Amino acid sequence: MRIVDKQQIVAHIDLALAVQRIEEGFVAFSNGKVQVPPVQMFAFAAANGDCCVKSAFIEGSETFTVKVSTGFYDNPGKGLESNDGLMLVLSASDGQPLALLQDQGWLTGMRTALAGRIAARLMAPREVYAIGILGTGMQARMQLEQLRPVTACRRVIVWGRNDAELASYSDFAAELGFDVQVTREAKTLAEGANLIVCTTPSRAALLDSEWVRPGTHITAIGADAPGKQELDPLLVARADRIIVDSVVQCRQYGEVSHALKAGLIEEAQLGEIGALLDGRIAGRTSDDEITLVDLTGVAVQDAQIALCALQSL
Amino acid sequence: MRIVDKQQIVAHIDLALAVQRIEEGFVAFSNGKVQVPPVQMFAFAAANGDCCVKSAFIEGSETFTVKVSTGFYDNPGKGLESNDGLMLVLSASDGQPLALLQDQGWLTGMRTALAGRIAARLMAPREVYAIGILGTGMQARMQLEQLRPVTACRRVIVWGRNDAELASYSDFAAELGFDVQVTREAKTLAEGANLIVCTTPSRAALLDSEWVRPGTHITAIGADAPGKQELDPLLVARADRIIVDSVVQCRQYGEVSHALKAGLIEEAQLGEIGALLDGRIAGRTSDDEITLVDLTGVAVQDAQIALCALQSL
Repeated sequence: MRIVDKQQIVAHIDLALAVQRIEEGFVAFSNGKVQVPPVQMFAFAAANGDCCVKSAFIEGSETFTVKVSTGFYDNPGKGLESNDGLMLVLSASDGQPLALLQDQGWLTGMRTALAGRIAARLMAPREVYAIGILGTGMQARMQLEQLRPVTACRRVIVWGRNDAELASYSDFAAELGFDVQVTREAKTLAEGANLIVCTTPSRAALLDSEWVRPGTHITAIGADAPGKQELDPLLVARADRIIVDSVVQCRQYGEVSHALKAGLIEEAQLGEIGALLDGRIAGRTSDDEITLVDLTGVAVQDAQIALCALQSL
Repeated sequence: MRIVDKQQIVAHIDLALAVQRIEEGFVAFSNGKVQVPPVQMFAFAAANGDCCVKSAFIEGSETFTVKVSTGFYDNPGKGLESNDGLMLVLSASDGQPLALLQDQGWLTGMRTALAGRIAARLMAPREVYAIGILGTGMQARMQLEQLRPVTACRRVIVWGRNDAELASYSDFAAELGFDVQVTREAKTLAEGANLIVCTTPSRAALLDSEWVRPGTHITAIGADAPGKQELDPLLVARADRIIVDSVVQCRQYGEVSHALKAGLIEEAQLGEIGALLDGRIAGRTSDDEITLVDLTGVAVQDAQIALCALQSL
């Protein structure tokens, strides 16, 4: 059994291959070719922590993957990261454990960022005049990095609540070659950008429907668990096209779940990103449409990026 | 993160401590103090294999455990064991992965054998005149080994279908100091032994009710998944006392499930081993009673033996 640490993974991973593998994973998922058992969740009330175990097997694949992710929100006070995690890759032909990827959650961050990249490539308007990034954390950074191969736009408006974090993000984005505007008003971002990525753990809507201009694409990443929300449900309802990673999962959480529960949209309006990649459904059909991709995170992404990480070594 | 292999675990584990930890685990489980998310199961039809992921956290414990077990039934033809597995132990206070136990399924075998040892200590008749072991595989061996500390009996009757395997088991038991009788007739075993342990993967009843003598204790280990069965449901119904590891799980599978579905017993007759260990319910009350302990395997046993293995190093 191979033991691989985060440094090795980050140094060697072939991100173009990872994009391809994740796209294949989304297609297989939407074609019903993936075994995804129920997510196992723990709550550690005394330690303000949680853990989830996500596992997936794509029919026909040589391997399957078990991922353990933890979030312990008092960790920063102890000098530790809040999020940690690892992935196990096992043989689907004889059950032998093949690899332990001690990625400390990095692969989860990257597979999420690459899903955002895929979503933007499929759905963003032809001409992006400014990217809007909601949030200043790790995922806000990874998303901006991963948008560079799929848009020529090098202007970003970033929204956050903390001046020091906005300044730090500004430095980061400038180093990537972006012209950066920081704001504490989400309205400023919504009015100024037409490719928006929402990356916060917010539990209340941050973006109002009336602020968003026709032709804008929004990728919503943050609402990956029940109770989380970044978008006004009216904005979800206003979208001309709504793509999700998993219809079944988006009934339970994600931006779409709030609009479904409020009766503002119907499940029949939703299309899966795997079906879009497979050419079975349409994406954006005009420059004026508002489009939304709601990504709640599916285990097939973990299985595919883990396989890619191994193949890249 | 500590990486520990099977040899280290087998060489160092403190089995008396493991018994204590597993008993504590059963008590916590029966008191509702254990988080046990749904088992994740995969089926690998093309490779004749399966995998399950079992995870558990005992409230108040410093750690929690995720176990991955595989069974690939064509492996022996490739020179590999059918069963493999590993356990991950993580901190319940900060989420950090603490250890990977590459036990290759040994800890699962041992926690099962120790549950049989606990069951016999609690429920066996005062005078055991012969132990009966149904099956000749790894678990049949581990069970006999683990009965030695809890009974003075050194006579064993072993049932199997294959003469070579019976001969091999006979050698094994003789080396442990047992006077051994082998048989291919389950009736011979049932009539001759009053402490019976059933360890086969049978999918049909092997022990008829009328063969079993008053005063006998039976521990049923094999029926750890839907469809498996070793006992005549009439024998389950005849038992004066039925103890299970998990009432909820034994509704779904195990010997008890067949008798429940046939309407031969009622759930109210079942008691959990954790409640028995905790002194909240009674065990055997006379020398003439037939008693049954039905063990389907619960993840709290994995969590507790993993912790013990780590503490023993």
